[in-house]
Amino acid sequence: MRRVIIDTDTAGDDTIAILTALHHFQVEGITITGGNVQFDQEVENALYTVQVAGHGGKVPVYKGCERPLMAYGKAQHRTVEDVHGDDGMGGAHFPKADQRPESGHAVDFIIEKVHANPGEIELLAIAPLTNIAMAIQKDPTIIPEIAHLYIMGGTNNALGNITPAAEYNFYVDPEAAKIVLHAGIPITMVGWEMCTQYSVMDDDDHAEIAALGTSGADFFTAINKVVMQFNKSVHKLNGTTHPDTLLMAVAADESIMTKSGQYYVDVEAAGELTRGYSVVDINGRFGKEPNVRVCEAIDRPKFKSMLLDVLSAIQ
Amino acid sequence: MRRVIIDTDTAGDDTIAILTALHHFQVEGITITGGNVQFDQEVENALYTVQVAGHGGKVPVYKGCERPLMAYGKAQHRTVEDVHGDDGMGGAHFPKADQRPESGHAVDFIIEKVHANPGEIELLAIAPLTNIAMAIQKDPTIIPEIAHLYIMGGTNNALGNITPAAEYNFYVDPEAAKIVLHAGIPITMVGWEMCTQYSVMDDDDHAEIAALGTSGADFFTAINKVVMQFNKSVHKLNGTTHPDTLLMAVAADESIMTKSGQYYVDVEAAGELTRGYSVVDINGRFGKEPNVRVCEAIDRPKFKSMLLDVLSAIQ
Amino acid sequence: MRRVIIDTDTAGDDTIAILTALHHFQVEGITITGGNVQFDQEVENALYTVQVAGHGGKVPVYKGCERPLMAYGKAQHRTVEDVHGDDGMGGAHFPKADQRPESGHAVDFIIEKVHANPGEIELLAIAPLTNIAMAIQKDPTIIPEIAHLYIMGGTNNALGNITPAAEYNFYVDPEAAKIVLHAGIPITMVGWEMCTQYSVMDDDDHAEIAALGTSGADFFTAINKVVMQFNKSVHKLNGTTHPDTLLMAVAADESIMTKSGQYYVDVEAAGELTRGYSVVDINGRFGKEPNVRVCEAIDRPKFKSMLLDVLSAIQ
Amino acid sequence: MRRVIIDTDTAGDDTIAILTALHHFQVEGITITGGNVQFDQEVENALYTVQVAGHGGKVPVYKGCERPLMAYGKAQHRTVEDVHGDDGMGGAHFPKADQRPESGHAVDFIIEKVHANPGEIELLAIAPLTNIAMAIQKDPTIIPEIAHLYIMGGTNNALGNITPAAEYNFYVDPEAAKIVLHAGIPITMVGWEMCTQYSVMDDDDHAEIAALGTSGADFFTAINKVVMQFNKSVHKLNGTTHPDTLLMAVAADESIMTKSGQYYVDVEAAGELTRGYSVVDINGRFGKEPNVRVCEAIDRPKFKSMLLDVLSAIQ
Repeated sequence: MRRVIIDTDTAGDDTIAILTALHHFQVEGITITGGNVQFDQEVENALYTVQVAGHGGKVPVYKGCERPLMAYGKAQHRTVEDVHGDDGMGGAHFPKADQRPESGHAVDFIIEKVHANPGEIELLAIAPLTNIAMAIQKDPTIIPEIAHLYIMGGTNNALGNITPAAEYNFYVDPEAAKIVLHAGIPITMVGWEMCTQYSVMDDDDHAEIAALGTSGADFFTAINKVVMQFNKSVHKLNGTTHPDTLLMAVAADESIMTKSGQYYVDVEAAGELTRGYSVVDINGRFGKEPNVRVCEAIDRPKFKSMLLDVLSAIQ
Repeated sequence: MRRVIIDTDTAGDDTIAILTALHHFQVEGITITGGNVQFDQEVENALYTVQVAGHGGKVPVYKGCERPLMAYGKAQHRTVEDVHGDDGMGGAHFPKADQRPESGHAVDFIIEKVHANPGEIELLAIAPLTNIAMAIQKDPTIIPEIAHLYIMGGTNNALGNITPAAEYNFYVDPEAAKIVLHAGIPITMVGWEMCTQYSVMDDDDHAEIAALGTSGADFFTAINKVVMQFNKSVHKLNGTTHPDTLLMAVAADESIMTKSGQYYVDVEAAGELTRGYSVVDINGRFGKEPNVRVCEAIDRPKFKSMLLDVLSAIQ
Repeated sequence: MRRVIIDTDTAGDDTIAILTALHHFQVEGITITGGNVQFDQEVENALYTVQVAGHGGKVPVYKGCERPLMAYGKAQHRTVEDVHGDDGMGGAHFPKADQRPESGHAVDFIIEKVHANPGEIELLAIAPLTNIAMAIQKDPTIIPEIAHLYIMGGTNNALGNITPAAEYNFYVDPEAAKIVLHAGIPITMVGWEMCTQYSVMDDDDHAEIAALGTSGADFFTAINKVVMQFNKSVHKLNGTTHPDTLLMAVAADESIMTKSGQYYVDVEAAGELTRGYSVVDINGRFGKEPNVRVCEAIDRPKFKSMLLDVLSAIQ
Repeated sequence: MRRVIIDTDTAGDDTIAILTALHHFQVEGITITGGNVQFDQEVENALYTVQVAGHGGKVPVYKGCERPLMAYGKAQHRTVEDVHGDDGMGGAHFPKADQRPESGHAVDFIIEKVHANPGEIELLAIAPLTNIAMAIQKDPTIIPEIAHLYIMGGTNNALGNITPAAEYNFYVDPEAAKIVLHAGIPITMVGWEMCTQYSVMDDDDHAEIAALGTSGADFFTAINKVVMQFNKSVHKLNGTTHPDTLLMAVAADESIMTKSGQYYVDVEAAGELTRGYSVVDINGRFGKEPNVRVCEAIDRPKFKSMLLDVLSAIQ
C-alpha cells in the first residue's frame, strides 16, 4: 500500500477526501493547516472523520500552522463558514472524537517522516499550502525525498471560487503556493474547474448515496447540508462539490484522469485583483520549463463509482 | 443606418472586421491606435482595407496614439508580427492606398463626433483602448453621449493569447482598459474565448470562402496566410481566428449572441504575472455593480453566414 | 524674457508661485489640472491670482484634465482642503475675477504653443503631471521641442507629505509622473524635502512680509492662514511651506540651487504602501541612465529675498 | 546579565556586532540565516568570530533558513560579496574554527529557548528576518514571551543601500520583515541611515583602532578591508559602516540612542521599484497604531567608545 500524509483544513469535502484516502492508502499522518474554518474546529473535524472511518487512534493528527504566511498581525484570514457550516461539518455538530492531536508540530512531522522514508512518502494536499511551504523552507533537503505531491488548488484558466480569479486554497496563502510550486517536487494539480465539471453530486446522486444506508453515506449526507445550498445560490451549481475527494481519487487511481498536461504553473501574489490566481501556461507563452502535471479531464462515472465504494465500505 | 467609429490597430482580422462594419454601418471614421504592428503600417492597412471595400476616399482615417499609456520612454510595446505577418497583412505587401490619413488627431475626432451627435455614435473597439481612454480622460463630458461601446478584448475566465492570463488588447494597455471599463459607458465585451470557441475558420471553411471567387474572398485568403500557421503552432487551433469580425457581427446583429450576462469587469494592471487579465465576476464575489455586458455564446452558423455575406458582397 | 507655461492645481502656494513666475517670465498661459481642491475652484484661484498680479486679461488660463489618469469611474481623487482651506485660498473666499478661462483644452494649448515655438517654451509644473503626460501621450513630437521642464514633485529619499512615502503631486497621478519622467525631456525636479528644509516661513518671516504693506504681502498673509495651522499640527513644521514658489525661484535663477545632481528618477505606481514614491538613485544602484536633475540644496536667504521682491512689487 | 539570541548572516560588520554582544550579554546562541554571502560561509564566519572573542565552544551556533521565504526554486537570492569580500571577512580567509554548528534547527532553537525562559530572552537581529519570521509562524505562542526584538534593518525615510529605496536586510526578505513587524513583539529598529550618519569609521578612526594593538583590533582591520573600498566607490562614504555593531550598542546601552520615536512601520513587498522599502509613518498619515520604536539619533562619541572598549578587551 502506498504511504501518504494528508494535509488538510478539515471541513466539508475534506472529510470525504480523508475517508477516501484512508480507503486507498496507508495514511502515515494527517496534518492540519489554517483555512476553511477555525483552526481548532478543523482539528476536531479531522479527528472525528478518522473515527468515522474506523481508524480512531491509529492515524496521528498533527496541528500545523494556524494562519497563512502573510496573515500574522492582521485580522484572521478569510474563513468560509458560509460554505461549510459554522462547524465546517454542515452544521452537524458531531461529538468530540476520543483521539487527541499529537504534541509535535505538523511541519516537523512532515520533515521527519519524509527523511525517514526517502522517496516513499506522497503528500496529498487539500488545504492552503502553508504547512508544506514551511516544511520545505525549514528543511529544503526533503524536496528530493518527496515521492509526489498531489495538490487540490488553483484553476486552469477558469473561474475561481473565493474570487472570480482565485481558488480558495491558493487565495488563502499564495506565497505558500509559490514556494511549493517552484520547489522542484513532482506535482499533480487538480484545479477547481475539474471539481465543477466532473465532481458535482446533484439531488439524484445524493439520493443514490443515501440509499446505500451505510454510516458512511449518512456522514456524507450530513456534512453536505450547507454546501448544497451555498452552491445553488452562489456558484449556480445544482449539487455538492468534491474537489478534495476528486484529488484523492486521482492520486489513488490515475486512470480516472483521462487527460493531463505538463505545464508551467505559477501563482499571482502581487495583483490588485488577482491574488491567488494560478497561471497555467498551456501554450508555453512564458517560455518556462513545466513544473506541474495539470489534470484536464476526469472519467466522471469512475469517480462516482469510487466515491460510492468508499461510502459503502464504511458500515 | 447606425453610425459608428471603428478604433483599430489594423492588422489581420481587423481588416475583415472593417469590411464587416462598412457592410452593416455608416462608418463615420476609423481611428488608429498603437498595437499589432508598426503604427504607420497599421494606418496603411486601414486605408487599403477601406479601398478594398470600395469606400476609398469616403471614410476618414485618423491617426491616434502610437503607444499605450505607460509605454513612453520605454522600448516600443510588444507588437505581434509573428501572428499577422511583417506587414500585418499576412505578408501580402499590398500597394499603398490612394487615400491618406486626416490631419486631425483620433482623440479629437472621437470627442468632436460624439459631441456633434449626442447619443447617436457607437464605438467599435478592436484594439488596445488607448485612444478611447484618452478621449474620455481629455473630455469626460462625452461619456453620457456615447450610445454604446463594443469591445473586443479580455477573456471571460479563460486562457489568454499573449500571455496565459491576458488577451492582447487588454495586455497592451491595461491602464486604458481600466479607464474605459469604469467610465460609465454602456459596454458589450466579446472576449478571446468567444473567438476561439466560435470564430475559428478551418481549412474547409477557407476552401468554401475561396470558392466565392470574389475579391473580398481573395483578400480574406491573403491576409490570413500567417495567422493560420501561427494558430496551429502556438494556440493549437486548427484554423484562423476572427475576434474583431466577431465583435462587428455582434454589434451588427445581436441575435448572433445567444447568451450574455451583465457582470462586474475589471482589469489587472499591477500583477506580476497577470498584467492585462480581465476579471469577470460571474458569481458576484466582489459584490460590485455590473458595468459590462459580456458575450457568453455565439450562433456560429449565423456568424459564418454573416462573414460569407460580407466577403461575397465585395466584388 | 524667457517664455513659460505654468501647469497648476491652483491653491495655497500655487498662487505665490504664479505671482513669482509672472514677475520673472513671460507667461504664455496657465493650464489647470485636477489636484489640491475642486477643479472649478482651482480655475477661479488661478484667474484671481493673475488679477492680483495686475495681469488680469493678459494671461490666458486653460482648463485641463479634471482628474488623474486612473481616477475615472472611481470616487474623486484625494483633495486636500485640510491643507489649503475649503477654497484653497486659506478660506479667504476672494471674489470672482473678471477674466474667464479660455474655451480650448489645456492639453491642446500646450501642444500647440510648444509646436509654434520649438525649443523656446519652458514648462513650470506645480501640480499632478496629468496635463503634461496627456500632451506628450497625445503628441509625442512635442517632446524634443520642450526647452525644459521644471517639476515640483516627489522627494529625494525623504519623508513624503500625503503619505510617509509619497509627495502629493506624484501621489495623485503616479502614472502621469512616470510618463513624464521617462519621456526624454530635460527635467529639473525640486522635491518636497527642499521645501521643508529651505522654504519654511515662520511667524517672524510672516511678520516681516506683513510689514511690507503691499497688496502682494496682504495676499500672501491671507492665503497662508490654513496651511500655517496644518503644518504645525501634522508636519511639525513651525511655518508655512512654499514648494511651488521655490520651484519658480529655481527656474528663474538657478544660482539659488547651490547643489544638484543628475540621477535616475522613477515613480512607484504598483506598490501596496508606496504609490507615488519617487525613487532617486543617488548611488546608481539601478545602473540606469540619469533622466532628471535633482535639486539638493538651496540658498535660503536668496530664496527669501526673491519672495519678498515679488510680494513688494505687487502694490 | 541580559540573555540574548543573535540572528545573523555573518559577514563583515556582523562579526564586530557578535563581539560586541558577547561583551555585553549572555549570548544563549547564535542563529544563522541566509543573506550576505554563501550560507555555509556565514556559519563558518560566526564560529570563527566566537573563537576570536575567546568563547569558542561555549556559545552554540545553529543553522537556520538558507534562503528568504520567497526565494526557493528561484536563483539564489542576491548576496553581496562585493561589499564584504568573497568570504564575507574582507578576503582574510581565516582558518576553520574548532567549534562546529549544532545539529538542531535555528527556528526550533529560538522557539524552545524563548518558551523555556518566557519574558527573558531578547533577540538581536542583524540579518534578513527569515528565521524569526519562521519561528513566529511555526509557533505564534512565543510572541508574548519574547522580551524585546532589536532589528538592524530598513531606513527611516532615507536612502537605501542595496537599492535606492531599500536596505539590504529588509530587501532580501520583505515578507519575513512584514511578518515580524506586525507580530506584536516589542521592537526597536535601527535603520541604515543611523549607520551612515553615526557609525562610519574613517581612516583616522581605523588608525586609532589599529593602534590598540589587540587581536580584536587586528580582526577589525582585517574584516573591513573590502567594505572600506566599496563604501568609497558606491556609497560615497569615506569609511567603514557598522550597522550591526550599532544595533548591539543600542541594545546594550540605550543611552547612546539620543532620540527615538514610536511609529507605525511597514515594509513594501509588492512594489515594482520599492521591494523592501520600509515605511516609517513619522507624521501618522496612515492613522495606524505605532508598532516599532525607531532610533533617530545616536551619541556618536559614546558609540565609538563602546566599539573601542570591545576591541581593546579582546587580547
